[in-house]
Amino acid sequence: MKDKALTLLVEHKFAELRTLLTSLNAADLATLLSEFPESLLPVVFRILPKELASETFVEMDAESKEHLIKAFSDLELQTVLEQLFIDDTVDIIEEMPASLVKRILINTDKEKRAVINEVLNYPKNSAGSVMTTEYVNLRKDMTVKDAFTRIRRIGVNKETIYTCYVTDESKILLGIVTAKALMLASPDDLIENIMETNIISSNTHDSAKDVVKLIEKYDFLAIPVTDNEHRLVGIITFDDAMDIIKEQTDDEFMKMAAVAPLEDSYLKTPVLTHAKKRILWLLFLMVSATFTGIIITKYENGLSALLISFIPMLMSTGGNGGSQSSAIIIRCLATGEVKLRDFWHVMFKELKIGLIAGVTLAVANAARLWILNAVYYHVPGGLGKEMIVVGISLIGTVVIAKLLGCMLPMLAKKINLDPALFASPIITTLVDTISVFLYFNIAVSVF
Amino acid sequence: MKDKALTLLVEHKFAELRTLLTSLNAADLATLLSEFPESLLPVVFRILPKELASETFVEMDAESKEHLIKAFSDLELQTVLEQLFIDDTVDIIEEMPASLVKRILINTDKEKRAVINEVLNYPKNSAGSVMTTEYVNLRKDMTVKDAFTRIRRIGVNKETIYTCYVTDESKILLGIVTAKALMLASPDDLIENIMETNIISSNTHDSAKDVVKLIEKYDFLAIPVTDNEHRLVGIITFDDAMDIIKEQTDDEFMKMAAVAPLEDSYLKTPVLTHAKKRILWLLFLMVSATFTGIIITKYENGLSALLISFIPMLMSTGGNGGSQSSAIIIRCLATGEVKLRDFWHVMFKELKIGLIAGVTLAVANAARLWILNAVYYHVPGGLGKEMIVVGISLIGTVVIAKLLGCMLPMLAKKINLDPALFASPIITTLVDTISVFLYFNIAVSVF
Repeated sequence: MKDKALTLLVEHKFAELRTLLTSLNAADLATLLSEFPESLLPVVFRILPKELASETFVEMDAESKEHLIKAFSDLELQTVLEQLFIDDTVDIIEEMPASLVKRILINTDKEKRAVINEVLNYPKNSAGSVMTTEYVNLRKDMTVKDAFTRIRRIGVNKETIYTCYVTDESKILLGIVTAKALMLASPDDLIENIMETNIISSNTHDSAKDVVKLIEKYDFLAIPVTDNEHRLVGIITFDDAMDIIKEQTDDEFMKMAAVAPLEDSYLKTPVLTHAKKRILWLLFLMVSATFTGIIITKYENGLSALLISFIPMLMSTGGNGGSQSSAIIIRCLATGEVKLRDFWHVMFKELKIGLIAGVTLAVANAARLWILNAVYYHVPGGLGKEMIVVGISLIGTVVIAKLLGCMLPMLAKKINLDPALFASPIITTLVDTISVFLYFNIAVSVF
Repeated sequence: MKDKALTLLVEHKFAELRTLLTSLNAADLATLLSEFPESLLPVVFRILPKELASETFVEMDAESKEHLIKAFSDLELQTVLEQLFIDDTVDIIEEMPASLVKRILINTDKEKRAVINEVLNYPKNSAGSVMTTEYVNLRKDMTVKDAFTRIRRIGVNKETIYTCYVTDESKILLGIVTAKALMLASPDDLIENIMETNIISSNTHDSAKDVVKLIEKYDFLAIPVTDNEHRLVGIITFDDAMDIIKEQTDDEFMKMAAVAPLEDSYLKTPVLTHAKKRILWLLFLMVSATFTGIIITKYENGLSALLISFIPMLMSTGGNGGSQSSAIIIRCLATGEVKLRDFWHVMFKELKIGLIAGVTLAVANAARLWILNAVYYHVPGGLGKEMIVVGISLIGTVVIAKLLGCMLPMLAKKINLDPALFASPIITTLVDTISVFLYFNIAVSVF
């Protein structure tokens, strides 16, 4: 496909190329064009039908967009921008350097520019900043027939026509009419009589994350966004919600691994940015880990080589046990499956899980030591003391790890910090220190 | 709300209760009812309008569903099942114990039962097993007016009427018509002329995960599912896709923390099941960590207490550095952002990131040692040798950790294993052993 398209382009067979490219949809076309040399992109865009050109433009990555905007004439830029939905234009503006933003805004018509500026002013990640202002609004005294006429007239340029919004003169949201209700109603029915008035809506300042949860919960195609006076200012559609979910999950994953969230894709992010996103956490954790080192130096002379050899195993088990709990609780807090009021329920549950896991590991370790002694050490009387010291340390470490793993993310949430702060790396480092300290104290008191 | 509803129920004010409950939508009603004593649920369901009753039933958790099915008379069960979509019925059947499944199937009408059995036979997590068979199909020689008539007649019971499917006599999928196209067309247009023939569809045996990616990519409301002869057998809608994404993300999170995926919610899963899902990994990792212990015992006599105190810091830094890379790569492989063909690109990138991070940490550590010596140790000539040994070990450890962290998930994918196998816990354990080994060898050769 790529080679064929390139050949047609080089041979100037533009009509054929146009036919070939228009057989694709925007997402696929953008993927294909991302493999073209950037210098050829403007020519390709010039031969595309303008709607497809705009849709494809939205799907390109930031770098190609920048290149294209620079290469477009003002008229071409206007044509592309004219076809874009407000929320897509806002997204593009947020990605572009200041000089290009100026050019984009100059080439947008006045009315649209006012709306864009308004949306740009909402706080980052608020419902207002991700909504689109292009929806179909109806009046309650319209008939179903009137509504169809209106949808036919203005619907083409709206992000969705499947949920229409009934507002009064001052834009107060009165009800919602789905296209399904319209299609199943008779032409003379009044909108007032078929609209749904039990509306679930969001506020411009709500976090986009929470609004997306509503869309997920109620299987909405779109959710209305209103201002503090309950006036309808925009909507968030399910496909934008899906994009937000994906971004959010990406961020959560990065946080779980102690990486600051990336703004761009992995491959497009430069090495230095990657390094910056990771070094701060590594430094912080490195310094924290020195405490464990200090404890080891303080005690190690009193202990046998055999007892020292258990340290990595104890540290690793504590770290892993704590990571398990913290990962589960952080995820459950994010999805709302576990609430802060479940604190004691969760703590008690993790205590029991910790005890079961700890005892199992202690028994497994005792068995390993028994075999090791029979095959290798041949200490008369066996390694009973070691079994007890390591066993008790294992149980204590796993229980403490599980309790910290669920407690810290919940406490973080309680004081409005991000629970993901207490993901695997922090919990591991913390539990390491505690487990080594616990182990040495038990060992010293027994031997 | 809960107290008011309960009071009305106890006082037998059923008409008022019905009015109160029908003001809620199914998702909220299910949340409310989940706080009711289970024994009262059947009475509540009896007074609900049958459509709301069915929709609410779908939203309840498995335990309450089971209780309700047991309490329903056959006629009541039939009424609820009649209103359910096929995919919801299949989901319920998969959750229920065998005895109840029998009762459910007996109370489903014959035609629906046949379809349910067919869907149940598709492999787990395949497109066929999650699709719904309730869609609107049209013929290509219909007019738009005919189509509207058909949608009005059969649309009420279909999962979506916003995407209609044009099939021939043998159910071969010919095209797609959106409700938008129908609403914008004139009544006498032929379906043939307004249908989209450039169809993106999925096969019943495709993995549901991949099909969901298509829905995300193209912002589809629904995607058709066809059999090997290109006959349309069902559709997957965007709301089911959102549910699948959520389940999948939950599983990914659990895997990242070395927990086997849970089938039920955290709070509903019994302690023993939780423990089982975690112990196997903990045991495996515990045994792996003993290798690090063996290495430490072998070398520790030759090293000063100061040099031993660096071990936890090195292990922790290596583990964290590796976790960062593996988490990023696992996520990028899952979303398709990084492909196997990017292997060398990724490796080279991580090598450079590892070098930058390693050198930064080595310099930070040298500074820490310099201060430590000035304040505490006062070794004449400083801790130059320690700075060099620990510094080189840090750089080596971080670079190896980063390379393993991206290499192992990609190799796993290459041989069709789950990349998440090489998430943080395994990488940490592996890097621990390597970093300690590296450190001792460098230390022994310098001192």
